[in-house]
Amino acid sequence: MTQHTDFMRRAIALAQQGLNTTTPNPRVGCVLVKAGQTIGEGYHQQAGQPHAEVNALQNAKDNGHSPTGATAYVTLEPCSHHGRTPPCAEALIAAGVAEVVIGSSDPNPEVSGRGVEMLRQAGIAVTESVLREACDELNLGFFKRMTTGLPWVTVKLGMSLDAKIATASGESQWITGSEARQDVQYLRARMCAVMTSSATVIADNPSLNVRLDNISRQPKRVVVDSQLSISPQSQLFALQGETLIYTCEPAASQSHFLAQNSRPSIKSVPENNGHADLTAVLQDLAQHQACNDVLVEAGGRFAGALLASDCVDELVIYTAPMLLGQGARPAFDFAAVAALADAKRFVLRDSSTIGNDLKAVYRRK
Amino acid sequence: MTQHTDFMRRAIALAQQGLNTTTPNPRVGCVLVKAGQTIGEGYHQQAGQPHAEVNALQNAKDNGHSPTGATAYVTLEPCSHHGRTPPCAEALIAAGVAEVVIGSSDPNPEVSGRGVEMLRQAGIAVTESVLREACDELNLGFFKRMTTGLPWVTVKLGMSLDAKIATASGESQWITGSEARQDVQYLRARMCAVMTSSATVIADNPSLNVRLDNISRQPKRVVVDSQLSISPQSQLFALQGETLIYTCEPAASQSHFLAQNSRPSIKSVPENNGHADLTAVLQDLAQHQACNDVLVEAGGRFAGALLASDCVDELVIYTAPMLLGQGARPAFDFAAVAALADAKRFVLRDSSTIGNDLKAVYRRK
Repeated sequence: MTQHTDFMRRAIALAQQGLNTTTPNPRVGCVLVKAGQTIGEGYHQQAGQPHAEVNALQNAKDNGHSPTGATAYVTLEPCSHHGRTPPCAEALIAAGVAEVVIGSSDPNPEVSGRGVEMLRQAGIAVTESVLREACDELNLGFFKRMTTGLPWVTVKLGMSLDAKIATASGESQWITGSEARQDVQYLRARMCAVMTSSATVIADNPSLNVRLDNISRQPKRVVVDSQLSISPQSQLFALQGETLIYTCEPAASQSHFLAQNSRPSIKSVPENNGHADLTAVLQDLAQHQACNDVLVEAGGRFAGALLASDCVDELVIYTAPMLLGQGARPAFDFAAVAALADAKRFVLRDSSTIGNDLKAVYRRK
Repeated sequence: MTQHTDFMRRAIALAQQGLNTTTPNPRVGCVLVKAGQTIGEGYHQQAGQPHAEVNALQNAKDNGHSPTGATAYVTLEPCSHHGRTPPCAEALIAAGVAEVVIGSSDPNPEVSGRGVEMLRQAGIAVTESVLREACDELNLGFFKRMTTGLPWVTVKLGMSLDAKIATASGESQWITGSEARQDVQYLRARMCAVMTSSATVIADNPSLNVRLDNISRQPKRVVVDSQLSISPQSQLFALQGETLIYTCEPAASQSHFLAQNSRPSIKSVPENNGHADLTAVLQDLAQHQACNDVLVEAGGRFAGALLASDCVDELVIYTAPMLLGQGARPAFDFAAVAALADAKRFVLRDSSTIGNDLKAVYRRK
């Protein structure tokens, strides 16, 4: 089993090389092993391109190795369906592998287990759930979209020790340090979409793009703007990459956006208590925009509305070592719970020091 | 030098054995080394008892070793004055040590350097500032009291992710987990005093004592109660240990406390904007109550008042992974700063996970 986990760990490391690029597909890595030696490695790089298993088989072949009788370590159950590429289970069978070791099961309830079944019917030994939790971590968003029709929602906040994101007058640049802000670039880079509110666009005119070298894909930039009140000249529309607005305004009120060179897509969503229905926004992002995960970078009210709607899967909080006092703008602006038993509860997943700030990652409990 | 730091590290470990007991004296450790071998060790245990150097010399003697020609590693400059015990510099000279290696200098500006001078005049080689920062950490409170006449003030808070310490209705038991609350016991145990406000006593009736096994000393329990509004039956007065109230009320209004069995000391302090003058309280604690350090365990207003007065040296924050929303009670209740440049700034010193909570220690910048 130690060997199993060693090779699976390598498959996970391979999968992570597709962290920023596989969307809307899952991140998958594959290692082919024969007589204890790695003979081929592969990972999925980009939708439309070969899956991890096929890349690993090709890599073995390129290195002059035959996969016949090999063990394949795959972070995700090999697919059983014909998509843009033929099923990977078939490819493994055709290559004559003797054993397949799997991390995560296919999350799609309609096909989960079929890849395993196909392999077993071909006489291949299958071991499931090896380092499953670590393999699942690669694709929390993909799994959530497949099983619920909603994206994984991460709310990022840069705040003071007293949970403020700006002074009373709105001054917020900068509370966190440059190292924390750089870290956010990596967080953005792996997301399918970065979402904000009209209030943040109007107040800060943010770019919300990824400013890193060697980035081949920009996440979609999404603004929730129930009254379509932001300017078509806002910075985030001028930069490379897709942009998208969700509004409650009818099509007739959208004409001022149409003349723009790089005009955003505009989609209508129902109203809910005078605001855009956030669940409808998220459903559209998962089901029609192929978004596995969404990073929210906005103010306390928008974060608060998402929290109040129980839409938040993850909080990434950068806390700066300063205090701004009462009257400064809160990071989490939602109506107080009546009792401690009603608190919105999370679980601390990870914490680290970034520059002078403390970064903490929380998951929904 | 590597050997120097190795032995000094051991001297620091010895000093830490006096963490909870030396008050109002500093924590000091001493190692005697001859030909690379430790021949004696000692630390200061309690005021009135021998200092670390004398204990180490006695320990060497007990083990049949002569300190003549030895090197003494001491975390703090040996004292040069006759107090309740004779000067340690004299004892080292009389014992014939050849070399003394020192961590911290004596913080008392009137005597700092005199111990070193006395040793050098006796022909002893002296090396100063070895692991000085780590040695200084042992006695931040003692040093602050000696140099400023004020105690080191640590504010402890158990709060939610949105920096709330109770629901709007005041429910606060418990936001943090049992592990964090247990950790606070160790924090209390090493303090000279634990201070709170009348509001906290009235709302929560806390004990504020140390509930650990093998505790020989309880920190003083201090209540700031400008109007003397707390009940003489409050729990913290009934438990073992000294208690002390600072009030702005005249002696005539204090009679209802005099009948109590374990009655607190009551001291008058000036008023400042309708509240007890906190600087006056702290000065009295340092200068008349021999308090090197004070742990503040109170609500957001008291913590806020201390912050607004720039009296806070250290924050120890236990953050529970939950959100309580706007309207819940803030951990830091002071008037918002006008601009980011005016933020109250700290430096993150340490962070760790305690149970489900995140503990972070901040120092004044």
